[in-house]
Amino acid sequence: MDRDFVNSFLDSTSNVLATMAAMDFSVGHPRFKKEELPISNITGMIAMSSPQAVGTLVISFTEPVILSLASRMLMETVDEINGEVIDLVGELTNMVTGGAKRVLEEKGFDFDMATPVVIQGENQQITQFSNGPTIVVPYSTDAGDFYVEICFEAIDS
Amino acid sequence: MDRDFVNSFLDSTSNVLATMAAMDFSVGHPRFKKEELPISNITGMIAMSSPQAVGTLVISFTEPVILSLASRMLMETVDEINGEVIDLVGELTNMVTGGAKRVLEEKGFDFDMATPVVIQGENQQITQFSNGPTIVVPYSTDAGDFYVEICFEAIDS
Repeated sequence: MDRDFVNSFLDSTSNVLATMAAMDFSVGHPRFKKEELPISNITGMIAMSSPQAVGTLVISFTEPVILSLASRMLMETVDEINGEVIDLVGELTNMVTGGAKRVLEEKGFDFDMATPVVIQGENQQITQFSNGPTIVVPYSTDAGDFYVEICFEAIDS
Repeated sequence: MDRDFVNSFLDSTSNVLATMAAMDFSVGHPRFKKEELPISNITGMIAMSSPQAVGTLVISFTEPVILSLASRMLMETVDEINGEVIDLVGELTNMVTGGAKRVLEEKGFDFDMATPVVIQGENQQITQFSNGPTIVVPYSTDAGDFYVEICFEAIDS
């Protein structure tokens, strides 16, 4: 995975956050995932495949961060992870992946997107099985940090 | 999703359980997922895509069931969800999906498989976002029940 590839997801996440949630945030340095991330409460993911590569985008939130994000997006105070919040994580995951897909298309990658899956729960730890590296991008917000994980492997042709 | 399609996953799950874990189990009736399943502790999933359809297979276990399954497969007592158990759920998910892929190929579906993702945590609830239905197949074992969920949507061509 080259920097351009990672940046497609990073830029798309930043775009979605800024336009949909009008949220202040800072983006940390992308790094290889070597140990488990801090535990989270809700995770959205979408697999993507192209003739060149296959992989998954994962976005993982703690409860305080997703409630803050949901409150901004829904323009009302949201104080629990309910069905509306689950839908919103599905939608966010879809928007981020869709945005990255469009940028990657310009770079010669023609990705198909699978459908989003959202898992809610406590103390979540995510493991991706792949021959490729998992890259983690940390985002900091007023309500805490959250993480975008991308993991792709090249397809032998 | 027709019965044949669902049965490909169901047969593959049963094969993997019988051959890899030598486990006694009974298979319940496949049903449409209308409400959340009982909560689980570890979930494996793989997205699949073909020119005709896109979707995800999800296998979700409570702690007692996965520890019983892991103890059988690893031929030693496993009393916590550790890294080895996480790997095993990734592998099981892969084997079930791979088996179904081969059967579906004979039926004219040429699916690409994404890479497996495993999420560990407490009180997991899974939501698939799709235009297609989510079908749930319950399996009963001595240690409790577990669930296979398949959710596919047709691709407009």
